Amino acid sequence: MSIFSKIIAGEIPSFKIAENDRFYAFLDIFPATEGHTLVVPKIEVDKLFDLPDDYLEGYLSFCKPIAQAIQQVTGCNRVNIVTIGFEVPHAHIHLVPMNGMQDADILTKKIKPTMEELKATQEKILAAIPA
Amino acid sequence: MSIFSKIIAGEIPSFKIAENDRFYAFLDIFPATEGHTLVVPKIEVDKLFDLPDDYLEGYLSFCKPIAQAIQQVTGCNRVNIVTIGFEVPHAHIHLVPMNGMQDADILTKKIKPTMEELKATQEKILAAIPA
Repeated sequence: MSIFSKIIAGEIPSFKIAENDRFYAFLDIFPATEGHTLVVPKIEVDKLFDLPDDYLEGYLSFCKPIAQAIQQVTGCNRVNIVTIGFEVPHAHIHLVPMNGMQDADILTKKIKPTMEELKATQEKILAAIPA
Repeated sequence: MSIFSKIIAGEIPSFKIAENDRFYAFLDIFPATEGHTLVVPKIEVDKLFDLPDDYLEGYLSFCKPIAQAIQQVTGCNRVNIVTIGFEVPHAHIHLVPMNGMQDADILTKKIKPTMEELKATQEKILAAIPA
């Protein structure tokens, strides 16, 4: 069972942002910028393009209201998507608010928020997602 | 008219990989790794998540056979997706074959292929896409 499956199952706590029948979104606790969120399918597939077609069709649509809420809360220029995937064999999309090229290298840029700061970010994003 | 719209219209040449009614895919001529492909919607929208829902639903599905062909041709570990978007105000997904973390910073990693090498890559990928 991947660490993401444990998070989805509630065995490992997370700053949850949203979920539906196929996807689960939560704050990255090692964010590149404030609001950096991971969106994970609820099935364990290593590589993005090995996901079933209905997951690929629903993935960006599921991300859209989350990205819009992150954009509203952070005032960023745009929310970008990134997959890398060499550390956890469970496909996931990074939603990363960016203001310019300086935010694009998410592997080396880390803002190191406290748990309290992550909680505050979670609450702001949750309040900005349409019911 | 964005440079991508000019490429889609054929006013600027490209190493085309695939197209349908909504999307156009072509080789990035400044690739991070061999096979690096740009996938662009045929409407000019600056930010990914401002695309209409049907574009978001069809985007990754359109990318899938291209990514599978790139994976087959390059033998990469996986094909990742990345958006950045600060240079051209027309949403686009980078499909980037990667073998490890060393390939993830696509802004600084550039392999500088010749036009002949790009042509050869295009032909290999086209041959690997199911008809």
